Amino acid sequence: MNSFPKQFTRTLVKLVRLQSGRNSFHTKVTYFASTWGSKQRDALKAVKPWAVKNYDVAEDFTMADINIEEVLAPLRARVKEQGDLVRKLKEEKADEIDIKKAVVELKARKKALEDKEVALTSGGKFDRVKMEDTLKRRFFYDQSFALYGGISGLYDYGPVGCAIKANFLQLWRNHFIIEEGMLEIDATMLTPEPVFKASGHVDRFTDFMVKDVKNGECFRADHLLEAHLEKLLGDKKITDALRNEYDTVIAQLDNFSKEELGNLFKKYNVKSPLTNNDLSDPHEFNLMFVTNIGPAGNVVGYLRPETAQGIFVNFKRLLEFNQGRLPFAAAQIGTSFRNEISPRSGLIRVREFQMCEIEHFIDPTDKSHHKFSSITDLNVALFPVNNQMTGKSAQLMTLGDAVKQGIIKSEVVAYFMGRIYQFLIKVGVDPKKFRFRQHLDNEMAHYACDCWDAECKTSYGWVECVGCADRSCYDLSQHAAATKTALTAEKPLPEPKTVDLVEVAPQKGVVGKAFKKEAKVLMEHLAKMSNEEAEALDKTMQEKGEVTLQVNSQSFTLKPEMVTVKRYQKTMHVEEFTPSVIEPSFGVGRILYSTFEHNFKVREGDEQRTYFSLPAAVAPYKCSVLPLSNKAELTDIVKQIATDLTYANISHKVDSGSGSIGRRYARTDEIAIPYGITVDFDSVKEPHTVTLRDRDSMEQVRAPVTDLTAVISDLATGKTTWADVQSKYPRFEGQEVTK
Amino acid sequence: MNSFPKQFTRTLVKLVRLQSGRNSFHTKVTYFASTWGSKQRDALKAVKPWAVKNYDVAEDFTMADINIEEVLAPLRARVKEQGDLVRKLKEEKADEIDIKKAVVELKARKKALEDKEVALTSGGKFDRVKMEDTLKRRFFYDQSFALYGGISGLYDYGPVGCAIKANFLQLWRNHFIIEEGMLEIDATMLTPEPVFKASGHVDRFTDFMVKDVKNGECFRADHLLEAHLEKLLGDKKITDALRNEYDTVIAQLDNFSKEELGNLFKKYNVKSPLTNNDLSDPHEFNLMFVTNIGPAGNVVGYLRPETAQGIFVNFKRLLEFNQGRLPFAAAQIGTSFRNEISPRSGLIRVREFQMCEIEHFIDPTDKSHHKFSSITDLNVALFPVNNQMTGKSAQLMTLGDAVKQGIIKSEVVAYFMGRIYQFLIKVGVDPKKFRFRQHLDNEMAHYACDCWDAECKTSYGWVECVGCADRSCYDLSQHAAATKTALTAEKPLPEPKTVDLVEVAPQKGVVGKAFKKEAKVLMEHLAKMSNEEAEALDKTMQEKGEVTLQVNSQSFTLKPEMVTVKRYQKTMHVEEFTPSVIEPSFGVGRILYSTFEHNFKVREGDEQRTYFSLPAAVAPYKCSVLPLSNKAELTDIVKQIATDLTYANISHKVDSGSGSIGRRYARTDEIAIPYGITVDFDSVKEPHTVTLRDRDSMEQVRAPVTDLTAVISDLATGKTTWADVQSKYPRFEGQEVTK
Repeated sequence: MNSFPKQFTRTLVKLVRLQSGRNSFHTKVTYFASTWGSKQRDALKAVKPWAVKNYDVAEDFTMADINIEEVLAPLRARVKEQGDLVRKLKEEKADEIDIKKAVVELKARKKALEDKEVALTSGGKFDRVKMEDTLKRRFFYDQSFALYGGISGLYDYGPVGCAIKANFLQLWRNHFIIEEGMLEIDATMLTPEPVFKASGHVDRFTDFMVKDVKNGECFRADHLLEAHLEKLLGDKKITDALRNEYDTVIAQLDNFSKEELGNLFKKYNVKSPLTNNDLSDPHEFNLMFVTNIGPAGNVVGYLRPETAQGIFVNFKRLLEFNQGRLPFAAAQIGTSFRNEISPRSGLIRVREFQMCEIEHFIDPTDKSHHKFSSITDLNVALFPVNNQMTGKSAQLMTLGDAVKQGIIKSEVVAYFMGRIYQFLIKVGVDPKKFRFRQHLDNEMAHYACDCWDAECKTSYGWVECVGCADRSCYDLSQHAAATKTALTAEKPLPEPKTVDLVEVAPQKGVVGKAFKKEAKVLMEHLAKMSNEEAEALDKTMQEKGEVTLQVNSQSFTLKPEMVTVKRYQKTMHVEEFTPSVIEPSFGVGRILYSTFEHNFKVREGDEQRTYFSLPAAVAPYKCSVLPLSNKAELTDIVKQIATDLTYANISHKVDSGSGSIGRRYARTDEIAIPYGITVDFDSVKEPHTVTLRDRDSMEQVRAPVTDLTAVISDLATGKTTWADVQSKYPRFEGQEVTK
Repeated sequence: MNSFPKQFTRTLVKLVRLQSGRNSFHTKVTYFASTWGSKQRDALKAVKPWAVKNYDVAEDFTMADINIEEVLAPLRARVKEQGDLVRKLKEEKADEIDIKKAVVELKARKKALEDKEVALTSGGKFDRVKMEDTLKRRFFYDQSFALYGGISGLYDYGPVGCAIKANFLQLWRNHFIIEEGMLEIDATMLTPEPVFKASGHVDRFTDFMVKDVKNGECFRADHLLEAHLEKLLGDKKITDALRNEYDTVIAQLDNFSKEELGNLFKKYNVKSPLTNNDLSDPHEFNLMFVTNIGPAGNVVGYLRPETAQGIFVNFKRLLEFNQGRLPFAAAQIGTSFRNEISPRSGLIRVREFQMCEIEHFIDPTDKSHHKFSSITDLNVALFPVNNQMTGKSAQLMTLGDAVKQGIIKSEVVAYFMGRIYQFLIKVGVDPKKFRFRQHLDNEMAHYACDCWDAECKTSYGWVECVGCADRSCYDLSQHAAATKTALTAEKPLPEPKTVDLVEVAPQKGVVGKAFKKEAKVLMEHLAKMSNEEAEALDKTMQEKGEVTLQVNSQSFTLKPEMVTVKRYQKTMHVEEFTPSVIEPSFGVGRILYSTFEHNFKVREGDEQRTYFSLPAAVAPYKCSVLPLSNKAELTDIVKQIATDLTYANISHKVDSGSGSIGRRYARTDEIAIPYGITVDFDSVKEPHTVTLRDRDSMEQVRAPVTDLTAVISDLATGKTTWADVQSKYPRFEGQEVTK
């Protein structure tokens, strides 16, 4: 990495010059400056030299940034004001309704700030249409069943996208499953109803929908209301008061109840957009696809909306596989399905998608992680609750500090955040367009203790790509209750514990005679009594001479001769507990899409020439092989190179098509091929040599054919860098003919 | 490979001694003898030394084989007799009904022969219960949702099965997609109805079902009838005539029409097995899972029952990606679903399963393959139509000879059969329990020209694991017709062709005036006329002075002033055609299950100790790491080894649990871990060394810690063999303590 120190110094100088007194801006600048911590740089360099290069962000800072801060300042102030109010209300233990209202307003102000921030800082440079045209034209992915008119929310990956996805998943498997020794499982997608009844999905996995009362067309209520208000806002003659009202409603769309939404539809007289027909009231629509398993039609099945439940229902088998020991993690790579009412935003909101999910089971009283120290120095952009409540931006912080300051609530959550960050950088996420956002209290599921979303900044705004949640013991408890099966682990007590037990033992003969066939119910009830209940029964019996028990709305009056109260001690060596679970959950399509945006580049001075600077590890083909002509003496060498690469399982693409070499380079750059091998007329001389070209710098060296497989393999796996290659082989100065 | 030549000689000697005059037995013996062709052995050695070892089959041959042949001879004769009849009827162009009846009887006789052959030759040695207990206990896979009572036909893969499957798929991707330069795609599983309407699945992908009229329970008609007749056969007092009748019906179960089945249910008075209630008449049950896509409920979607259609509907994009050139192959790895009426046989017949499918598109006039020569010498067990019609067994034959003799109908089909065979051997299929069975004419879909099933012999009989079919242009034609879109490719004509064209050009003004708004229909009709039609029109016009055309039940009478007949020439440089497709289609679960059976072994002299001799390439972990004690000086070395292995992405399992080293070896053998590293007290001395153990031979060497990563990696990828390792490192003589 020849040019690091110089770049680093230059960056620092520029950053210092730019530092203004404004707090949030200072934070932002510090973020990038501290990114250059040498430890992290080295770690990054090891996994992906490319990522380190991207840290050279100094050039991005101009006076424009300071102007942006001036625009944002009042918005930040409005957030802080409302955040303070929410806190105050909570401290004062105000009415829940009032707190809820204040939170809704807080979210609205946060969203206004964020929208403005994204709008101002994305710089308008990114041309999504151009990128999407490339993705479609070169068949990274495209709408499914286009031949039949297409189905929205369904996408097919073509050869390029498919190879990228396969590499991505292999990296994921290595990074998490192999490196962390996780237990991978592959559960079915078809799932019987009781599982999702227990997990809560049957009752709560819904969106609000309205229906055109005449033609039955369906709309997602919040989307439709937003579109309607946006249209009203388009009228230049509306009053400021109305504009403010509409803006506020739009900002709060996520928070309305069914009734509130219904009232708003009436208030604004929203109609079906194409037909102008009346709309139904909003109602819940369950987002799971439903089918029948088996021919009889009486086993309702759903296509899973997440892979996690497949792990929970296998918990006992997995714990046994791990010889009963905690902590352990299970992982799953698989497809999930959500019947979105109106899918949009390309790969970001789709109906069928791949996920990678991890469930890391722990003893809830021990949230340490034995490898925590390996990630404490990682500097990561965090957007904690406090910053969100006060209108501040995300701030760069080491994960170690974040735990020390109580911002991240446990070592184990911080550890996974660190591993998630390392992985995302490895696959091509731009660290400048990345943050971990902490969920606000009211955003989290009621059972979760801490939850962070890994978010990537795209032209669609900040996109949640990975969730990392401490879900406590919710899921296991739900399935245990639904199946009446203990889903627990055991741990040895530090020392054996002697416990006092009180038991109400029935005199079976007497009880049987007294209660006949109801006796069984009674005896089961007695057997389950806690110490306290047993003592209470004993006390009542002694005081009143009889005890009346209610069991399942049945009444039993016990006489002294029917029961004996026994007291004894028992030595316990282990205790049972329900494990908590930390769940990192990756949306594959969302991450891939983000990396496409983060790596879509235009060649300087040639707007038409675009390329994807994806890391070699995920690139669809590791190199191209391009003969300068189709003469046999050249194609023989091409064949030999291709055979060698194939033997080493290195994916590559031979392009012996027509077109200048420059045009062929452009064609391979466009599908992110990181290295190009060109066989030219000099290659015929023995020992055979070829030119090797780096996609990002377009620099070339001349290397012997016999070295190629090893060099490409080492470049693709990060064992060597382009700089190393340049220092080893002579530079090749042949001009790149572009037209 | 030290012991090859000796073994080979011994095998040959024994085989020659065993050769009897009986033709089919001779064939069988020849099969194994010729398997030792040195070319193939070397090829196999390269990919999997293990597989070569298994070719040492001489020990399996005893006098028992000859006795078996005596039992089978009359059955073979019966098949041949019926096969001759079928041929004769076909030659005589007999009534189709008569041919069909004769074929049904032929199949029945074939099945009787096959059942007997399997029963006699599987030797009763294989203990399926024991193997399935291991698979379940060590969580290779298990029934899904067992916690909720289980759903039949759904299986979850646990950590061991999942790792094996992931390795399997990676090998598949390397063997086919990378090595053959295929275009991989990943299409959605959710598929709108018109796609499967076009492919024929909506109308024809059905099984016959009967229903308990009172409780609604459903049964697969053929299964239920079979069970009923088996029960009747269990009665020792039935007459030979009845026994023969029932046997005949059972043998023909696959062939009955709905009406025939219904009559048999009535004839034998079949009732619902548990309730004894009446049953409904048999009716078709479609095996696709159905759901609704989107909220409106008007877009019917199916879960795909095969992945192939996802490739066909993307044909145009894929052809474009391949720059318009044929041949090319697209491939897909993905999940499919079949709502089996009554799933059974473990992984073999399930409701959700993974497939790997290839569609190799070719010009139907050119069925060569440019790499055909690379597989011509492969000796493979073929079971062609002729052998099936004459009662012969499968026979060993080179693929080159099979094409030369017209047994395999094209080079391209033979090429893929060769590649399929190589792959299956690589992942652990036992070549002794393998054959390619050709479909009989009436078994093939009407559009297919040649179809071979790669079958593995298991305790369930011969199981179809891979299909390899020449499907001609059926699928593309169907989708083209359904969408009115040309799904064709172009090829350059050898030389430009000048064609004569005849065109009927309307005089638009006159036509418009005469037919008003119907004129458009007429003009479209004229534009589509063939040369012959145009000439005929011209002739009639000249003879009769007018022409009457019927277009969509509308009548147009043309007068001479309305049209001009133009004759001209056009030079054509390319011609359009609909490609044919060769489809190799792999059932992942079925292949995995077969490899489990083929590799399940019992240690000599210890019935309790079982292991799976799976190839290292698919093994779930490449090695175990076992410390002899939990002292820090040993565990430090274990940690270092584990770290090194992790860094090299080599999956491994540390077992520092209690139990003797022998017991721990047994535990790792049971989940197919091919190599074991043991850290003992000698390991502490510098330079650190450990013992390295081979699962199959249980032999051990002593090797330096620093060599381990490279050695294991080379063993796992087949770059080195255990014999090589033994020649490099000193033998370790420590006894393996088993209890």
